[in-house]
Amino acid sequence: MNTAAERPIILITNDDGITAPGIRALVEAVQHLGEVVVVAPDKPQSGMGHAITIGHPLRMNKVHMWPGIQSWQVSGTPADCVKLAVDKVLHRKPDLCLSGINHGANHAINVIYSGTMSAAMEAAIEGIPSVGFSLCDYSMEADFSASKQLISSMVEKILGMEKEKHFLLNVNIPNVAAELIAGIKLCRQAYAKYEEDFDERTDPHGRRYYWLTGEFVNKDEGTDTDVWALDHHYVSVVPIAIDFTNYHLKQQLSDNWPWAS
Amino acid sequence: MNTAAERPIILITNDDGITAPGIRALVEAVQHLGEVVVVAPDKPQSGMGHAITIGHPLRMNKVHMWPGIQSWQVSGTPADCVKLAVDKVLHRKPDLCLSGINHGANHAINVIYSGTMSAAMEAAIEGIPSVGFSLCDYSMEADFSASKQLISSMVEKILGMEKEKHFLLNVNIPNVAAELIAGIKLCRQAYAKYEEDFDERTDPHGRRYYWLTGEFVNKDEGTDTDVWALDHHYVSVVPIAIDFTNYHLKQQLSDNWPWAS
Repeated sequence: MNTAAERPIILITNDDGITAPGIRALVEAVQHLGEVVVVAPDKPQSGMGHAITIGHPLRMNKVHMWPGIQSWQVSGTPADCVKLAVDKVLHRKPDLCLSGINHGANHAINVIYSGTMSAAMEAAIEGIPSVGFSLCDYSMEADFSASKQLISSMVEKILGMEKEKHFLLNVNIPNVAAELIAGIKLCRQAYAKYEEDFDERTDPHGRRYYWLTGEFVNKDEGTDTDVWALDHHYVSVVPIAIDFTNYHLKQQLSDNWPWAS
Repeated sequence: MNTAAERPIILITNDDGITAPGIRALVEAVQHLGEVVVVAPDKPQSGMGHAITIGHPLRMNKVHMWPGIQSWQVSGTPADCVKLAVDKVLHRKPDLCLSGINHGANHAINVIYSGTMSAAMEAAIEGIPSVGFSLCDYSMEADFSASKQLISSMVEKILGMEKEKHFLLNVNIPNVAAELIAGIKLCRQAYAKYEEDFDERTDPHGRRYYWLTGEFVNKDEGTDTDVWALDHHYVSVVPIAIDFTNYHLKQQLSDNWPWAS
């Protein structure tokens, strides 16, 4: 009997690149739970949203990062990594795709800009249950020890659950010590936005250029949101849809259809 | 009395770049309806999803594209263009943001990868009612005459409507002559996906590389979807949400919360 063949296949990717401490922490947290395969960008891809590479070709090279774990680095985006993994690397559809651990929060509106979540979403579109993990600490020296413990136990439960076809979770972990985490909270995405303020500068040749800066502002007073949960030291879990239809607005327009002939 | 000050401000952007025929058609279709301001990428940005430019600075230059219409080209993504327009170009929040006309369909799952829709979504996040337009013809020589007629009348109605804060529509136009368009249909996003098949090649130095290719496959048999509408020569209108929470899955998980302590 080949028990190895029965182990779940866990595809791991991220958007900070294959050498980021966050993906190392994720691999270490779950490697005992299945056959882990890593396909991740060869450089940081933060803020790439759901970008895919159409206009130029991709490179993919096998690398040795973790003993006993097959790992590839890809010259493209997080979404490219998932597409390549499914089409060229894995011999069957994985049982789970995990993305992260992102260095920084992907709560609220950040889900839209997040490369971490775009990889997880790409997998969910493919019918692979998927979870994106982010730690609310942007530092490359972030302490992932509480995250590893938590993720290990969450992923074990998720593997054992019955899951719908496009199962997709956005998990954010507060930047506090393990013993200070208040619990795990199921949330909705908060309405928050960035108040942009481009930093306008002049280059040595007298030409203007702009750096994107901005302040994250929570506009949502709900106590059922991911922002609220993280502020209160909970791990936030937001189930994410791949159907972007606004059914509420659809109903509104349907009741008062402006294009009736 | 300054009547000019009372005209609606219409921000126009796209993802095919400021020189694409599609944005020209959009400007021509709506310039009589308000004060049009164009802020668009200086080169094609298709497939950029909701990417934003964090790691390097942006350039923005005034260009003369259309007589009497203020136009800027930006070295970044469609989402960057909207952010810069709001922060640096416009003297007040525009009344409407239009993105397109995209050269190619943005129906079904394409909304996730679409630079056209990411610009529209960025505006909707800012509280600017927004519409993305796409013509189901990938050619740079596409015939936009039917689209212009249609968009002109749609935008006039949208300007006159009462709209909710995050009003966002994904409009796709079938590639048929004006007289063959069956009507305008309110739809939900179809579940469709790409069956990827990377084209694997070897470069002159013997190293492998991959081109993303893939076939769009509709997995949705509903007759209320955008794919169905376009197949039947309707213009599809899908209202799009900026809240990605999957409330159905949230309820499911809530009924059977796996992380109860």
